[in-house]
Amino acid sequence: MEAGEQRGWIVPIGGAEEKESAPRILKRFVNVSGGRDADIVVIPTASRQSDTGARYEKIFRELGAERVDALDFAHRDDGKREDRLRRIEQATGIFFTGGNQLRISTILGGTAAAKLIRSRNAHGITVGGTSAGASILSEHMIAFGDEGSSPKAGSVRLAPGLGLTNRFVIDQHFRQRDRLGRLVTALAFNPFAVGIGLDEDTAAFIAPDNTLEVEGTGAVTVVDADGVEFSSMAQVEEGQPVCLLGLTVHILTAGATFNLHTRKASAGTLADG
Amino acid sequence: MEAGEQRGWIVPIGGAEEKESAPRILKRFVNVSGGRDADIVVIPTASRQSDTGARYEKIFRELGAERVDALDFAHRDDGKREDRLRRIEQATGIFFTGGNQLRISTILGGTAAAKLIRSRNAHGITVGGTSAGASILSEHMIAFGDEGSSPKAGSVRLAPGLGLTNRFVIDQHFRQRDRLGRLVTALAFNPFAVGIGLDEDTAAFIAPDNTLEVEGTGAVTVVDADGVEFSSMAQVEEGQPVCLLGLTVHILTAGATFNLHTRKASAGTLADG
Repeated sequence: MEAGEQRGWIVPIGGAEEKESAPRILKRFVNVSGGRDADIVVIPTASRQSDTGARYEKIFRELGAERVDALDFAHRDDGKREDRLRRIEQATGIFFTGGNQLRISTILGGTAAAKLIRSRNAHGITVGGTSAGASILSEHMIAFGDEGSSPKAGSVRLAPGLGLTNRFVIDQHFRQRDRLGRLVTALAFNPFAVGIGLDEDTAAFIAPDNTLEVEGTGAVTVVDADGVEFSSMAQVEEGQPVCLLGLTVHILTAGATFNLHTRKASAGTLADG
Repeated sequence: MEAGEQRGWIVPIGGAEEKESAPRILKRFVNVSGGRDADIVVIPTASRQSDTGARYEKIFRELGAERVDALDFAHRDDGKREDRLRRIEQATGIFFTGGNQLRISTILGGTAAAKLIRSRNAHGITVGGTSAGASILSEHMIAFGDEGSSPKAGSVRLAPGLGLTNRFVIDQHFRQRDRLGRLVTALAFNPFAVGIGLDEDTAAFIAPDNTLEVEGTGAVTVVDADGVEFSSMAQVEEGQPVCLLGLTVHILTAGATFNLHTRKASAGTLADG
């Protein structure tokens, strides 16, 4: 293991990523986890299905990872087990499967394992996840909410996530489940963060330098609240629409980039097409 | 009739406006059509229901309009009938009901009646409509499209509308039918216009000076494409997501304003709350 002092990649995926014929996102996840030397730990805690871990083990092995192990955390006690912490210490990539993000946060939150994953990412190891496994990655996590394009007070519930970064708030199955309203509502509380809405089969590969690049067949909707001039969130009641002025929105497709530090979007390779 | 040389009010409504207990939008429509002196012509052409015109006649009368008549145009020939043109000449407010906007455009488009309505609005008379009747008002009209938050090529079909202005493209039932994607797609073709997404029971009262003010219980989503740096619309195929960088989005609730000329949003009376 040769982790640099730079933060590792963070890879949120919008769910339902292609796993059979052209698994571009999962292949790239293996690449940024070390390629042929990748040692991946799969954490299927969000899922209720017993074969989820084994399924990803098989996929990542077929995609060329040297070593893959699914490590389920079913109880909070599992988060301090020495064998598991040792296994996480060895990994070059950690992957959270889909399911319910509140299972991950209630079982892993605050445990030695969660702290170790955060510290490993801070020291250069890749951490990613799909669907619930994407939502969990940031400091402020969308726990659940309503569907709909426009923001409404009470349409979203935030909870603390794994906390790899507080620069963004993630939402997934974005187009498929019509989640712009709840993502914007999440930003209306405190516009400091960037909202990242991931369509299915679409991922944001966030490099150590905080440049996000899109991979996959859908779009990533970036909502930048930095220029917000007014939010009525403090005045409105449950179910009422929220007034929010000055959002910047970019719709990025594969190859396009967004720098979370400078907040600049670029068409990347698309501009040459 | 004392029309000034200023353009009249344009009042698109997102559909399903409150008609019974607190019909704030329809009441305000009567006010900007002359209040107690209002002479309103209702055009129920979009609707397939025979009582739509009579229903609005009754509502507008109860709200204090001096004179109200429903004027159905069922065939293109109706658009040149002298009695109807004379009735439109007298009106201080013209109101299009909901239904299918393609019924209005196919029956009225290019007729003497359509030209007269456009000219009357240009000379100071109020023109508004709800749902399909809102879509028809602008030069570029969303004829139909798909649901979903993210823009996709082919997700929207534009058609020429009544053409009171080309400054904006309207979509209605906005939150309720998840139409942000198709509105943004409409702008991706040519970012010169402003997109206006109207929730149900919500209206944009667009004054002669091009300041839009929101009325009603929902939100108006204003999508300003003026700062767009890149659109991949020319490169993508049907069903593919569109890359679009640099949209500005404002979510306005009752009392908030947007100036279609300067493109400045303001919280209006909300900021004092």
